[in-house]
Amino acid sequence: MTAFDLEKLLSGNRRALAKAITLVESKLPAHREQAQDILEQVLPHSGNSMRVGITGVPGVGKSTFIEAFGLYLIEQGKRVAVLAVDPSSPIAGGSILGDKTRMEHLSRAEGAYIRPSPSEGALGGVAQKTRETMLLCEAAGYDVILVETVGVGQSEYQVAGMVDFFMVLMLPGGGDELQGIKKGIMELADALVINKADGDSERLAMLTRQQYTSAMNLLRHTSFWTPRVMTCSALKNLHIDAVWGMLVDYYLQAQDNGWFTEKRAKQNRDWMHQLVQEMLLLKLRGNPEVRRMLPELEQGVASAQITAYAAAKQIIDAL
Amino acid sequence: MTAFDLEKLLSGNRRALAKAITLVESKLPAHREQAQDILEQVLPHSGNSMRVGITGVPGVGKSTFIEAFGLYLIEQGKRVAVLAVDPSSPIAGGSILGDKTRMEHLSRAEGAYIRPSPSEGALGGVAQKTRETMLLCEAAGYDVILVETVGVGQSEYQVAGMVDFFMVLMLPGGGDELQGIKKGIMELADALVINKADGDSERLAMLTRQQYTSAMNLLRHTSFWTPRVMTCSALKNLHIDAVWGMLVDYYLQAQDNGWFTEKRAKQNRDWMHQLVQEMLLLKLRGNPEVRRMLPELEQGVASAQITAYAAAKQIIDAL
Repeated sequence: MTAFDLEKLLSGNRRALAKAITLVESKLPAHREQAQDILEQVLPHSGNSMRVGITGVPGVGKSTFIEAFGLYLIEQGKRVAVLAVDPSSPIAGGSILGDKTRMEHLSRAEGAYIRPSPSEGALGGVAQKTRETMLLCEAAGYDVILVETVGVGQSEYQVAGMVDFFMVLMLPGGGDELQGIKKGIMELADALVINKADGDSERLAMLTRQQYTSAMNLLRHTSFWTPRVMTCSALKNLHIDAVWGMLVDYYLQAQDNGWFTEKRAKQNRDWMHQLVQEMLLLKLRGNPEVRRMLPELEQGVASAQITAYAAAKQIIDAL
Repeated sequence: MTAFDLEKLLSGNRRALAKAITLVESKLPAHREQAQDILEQVLPHSGNSMRVGITGVPGVGKSTFIEAFGLYLIEQGKRVAVLAVDPSSPIAGGSILGDKTRMEHLSRAEGAYIRPSPSEGALGGVAQKTRETMLLCEAAGYDVILVETVGVGQSEYQVAGMVDFFMVLMLPGGGDELQGIKKGIMELADALVINKADGDSERLAMLTRQQYTSAMNLLRHTSFWTPRVMTCSALKNLHIDAVWGMLVDYYLQAQDNGWFTEKRAKQNRDWMHQLVQEMLLLKLRGNPEVRRMLPELEQGVASAQITAYAAAKQIIDAL
């Protein structure tokens, strides 16, 4: 990226941003190098957004919520980027590309940038691409980054590890078992937002809210923040402002007590260590000698002809 | 270990077994090598036991259950080894050394071998030692290996990854939240055994059993086996035989349909890959150049002066 392109990116030019993201997502080693070069340059201009993770099982109304929330933020003068961590998933009823067409109004808004999830990530997986794309969006001046995940797999942990605030969307009624949310995910949540709290469902949503408030109190939380349980209706645009109010409240407190800085520092360190591990494994897998011996060792270990330790040691010694 | 000592171990000599386990648990590199040598030799004689994991939160009566179950197995003519994965934990109310004195009758039984958990593991952690100790016990002729874990941390996953059958002990009454069991653990369980189902608690235990039976049906299971929910009283020796009956039923089916062989093969392969990863990280951490640069890189990444990718790459390049 030329200095000219970088200036464009920093000034918020969408094409420059898209170009940089494409380099970040590319699997070509040459692009990878270019992307890293750009990231080094934008790094001093990044970090100035609210990073918010949003998850929820299919059917919870995630796209509708993100659209309503995004449009509300734009009304407040914010610029909003929507990223996704999951590659296109049949479970989720299509990729975020589908969401893009569903998020009709938001995708047409001047202050919004919606980026479909890369279908596959090389090093660090899709999460790595999303992390890097987040930095680019911040440099391009987006104030709020919404990172979406479908909420059925492992990616919630990855998203929780890259955002400041993690929100779980729920449906009125039903226990968490019925809602298909894993308890581990509940432990990650800074807020549960019960969507579709309108019309006949409003009473049920209030009841659900009470139940989850008690349930959340039973969980251990490591943060200064006691997770909130709220209701809203993205479809009817009810209480969307309250969700934003909660976020602002969180940021004010977290910046004040140092949690914000500490959490981001830890996330970055963890991210580095994770990449080191992956790079090591890549190096290992790329080693011709290791590749030659691996099938036989796996077979030997599987059939208990050789201990796991002895096999592992042979692999390491071959490096 | 001399050929003579190996013969002793294979004949079931307790001192030879204890000696071999001590080598396995030692951190001295020389002992480590000796231990590996022994393990290679016993490997053809290992694998012939039922490997059963037992977990449950403190207070559930784990020691009492293991004692009652172990004594029952010995009555059936089995030889039983009890191993533990957790190092002494204040949460658990003491180490398994404490359990040993609590498992009074079992520890005095001729056919039982109780081994306290090593306080610390080098490579592969305590789980690695327990896996290797399991092989030694099998070679020494133990038919059933009970691997115990305190059920409050991550070690349940490790135990589930080294046994054929994973059992979670529960208390009568209370939801899983109140029982402090994580949902992820429930998904690992091949059986929930509600202990202390005696006297006034019997009715409550039956009710709890019904609730968990419904709850377990909501979870996805990857095995051929539908997890069972049972009640028992270790203190009063009630339904201990039914737990054994269930285990026998499981083994007959699992051996018949190939699941048994497949699961062990997969566990061994996973174990090897895990050791490779750990050995790689050890190699990295032992590298003087990496050690020299790590603090500065961590600091730079934490304060967003350098990207995680660039820092990780510097570390890898230094190797």
